[in-house]
Amino acid sequence: MIQNHETIPALEKRYRANLINSLGGFKSLVLIGTRHDEGTENLATFSSLFHLGADPALCGIIIRPGEPDRNTLDNILRQKHYTINHVQPSFFKQAHQCSARYAPGESEFAATGLTPLYEAGISAPFVKESVIRFACKLEQVVPIELNGTTLVIGKIIYVNLPDECVGADGFIDIEKAQTVTCSGLDSYHISKRLARLSYAKTDRPVTEVG
Amino acid sequence: MIQNHETIPALEKRYRANLINSLGGFKSLVLIGTRHDEGTENLATFSSLFHLGADPALCGIIIRPGEPDRNTLDNILRQKHYTINHVQPSFFKQAHQCSARYAPGESEFAATGLTPLYEAGISAPFVKESVIRFACKLEQVVPIELNGTTLVIGKIIYVNLPDECVGADGFIDIEKAQTVTCSGLDSYHISKRLARLSYAKTDRPVTEVG
Repeated sequence: MIQNHETIPALEKRYRANLINSLGGFKSLVLIGTRHDEGTENLATFSSLFHLGADPALCGIIIRPGEPDRNTLDNILRQKHYTINHVQPSFFKQAHQCSARYAPGESEFAATGLTPLYEAGISAPFVKESVIRFACKLEQVVPIELNGTTLVIGKIIYVNLPDECVGADGFIDIEKAQTVTCSGLDSYHISKRLARLSYAKTDRPVTEVG
Repeated sequence: MIQNHETIPALEKRYRANLINSLGGFKSLVLIGTRHDEGTENLATFSSLFHLGADPALCGIIIRPGEPDRNTLDNILRQKHYTINHVQPSFFKQAHQCSARYAPGESEFAATGLTPLYEAGISAPFVKESVIRFACKLEQVVPIELNGTTLVIGKIIYVNLPDECVGADGFIDIEKAQTVTCSGLDSYHISKRLARLSYAKTDRPVTEVG
């Protein structure tokens, strides 16, 4: 199939949404936990998380305009803290369910049966079932005027994961943790490692390591 | 393992790079093709691609300061076009090799044996070996002052992929295309589907579809 700058805008809306959402390859799948000032806990499915830097440790997420993403953004703007939780196969259906448009006062934890968990000094709830979880403090909000989305940049202030998943070099074996990846709007996958490769240098071929 | 806002900045630099780069989950792995005004072709490994919107069709990449990412940014700023190419297992080592710091005048295509391919109306080279490839036109550049990175937003103006990988609903089966995903700085994986799930509604459980 070939599409071009004239045919892409002319595609049927839902067809284009599926096509463009799956075009970018595999995505990070996470649940983002936030809390309203009045206490309501919110849990939202995100597939736009990306690495921004390690020093300082920064990551970005894209918030879409309108509900349900708006609840997450409002909570982050007020509380400054949010949690990011990997998804494992045992609860990927519940994670997908968190993308439904629950009313602002309704908790996705209660609706899906996932368990909120708090850590000292972090005002947002983690997902207890998640094997790898971390928390961010809001650093910067960047409105993307092209389409009304918002880039939220956070500093990583807390990390919690099983010792047996962390290598001596700091690499986290997220495959061992059974972290789920997603593609498109609704497809969920586990992974099978091809290899880890040596640091690439111009004067020698890469080799498999580890 | 638990790390917090005091211990994370104190980690050894390479250890922290591995930890934070693998913390965000699985990532999209792509090769970005660009061309210098004088004709030198550039091919760069990226794992920061993210979906920004389907209407208009937009995606973002993060460019790090300094070489080798700077070559890609310079080419995009001048030529406006860049290609994004999925990676398959048959050439994932060559894709990783493209992250080595080749001199600005040296082509990663020539260095790795990957084959440049041109399409009418697109000034940047595609990777012929890639099963799913698309092209973007530069829409916006957003400097991220927190750490000197640059967000490059592109409009998708060309898509080329096998008919048998596209469903009737527009979903691209990137697992069928054997698209590779990555984690951390050097780990490469293929995928195994758990399921596609129905559109999530608040009044019913999600079900497996397709």
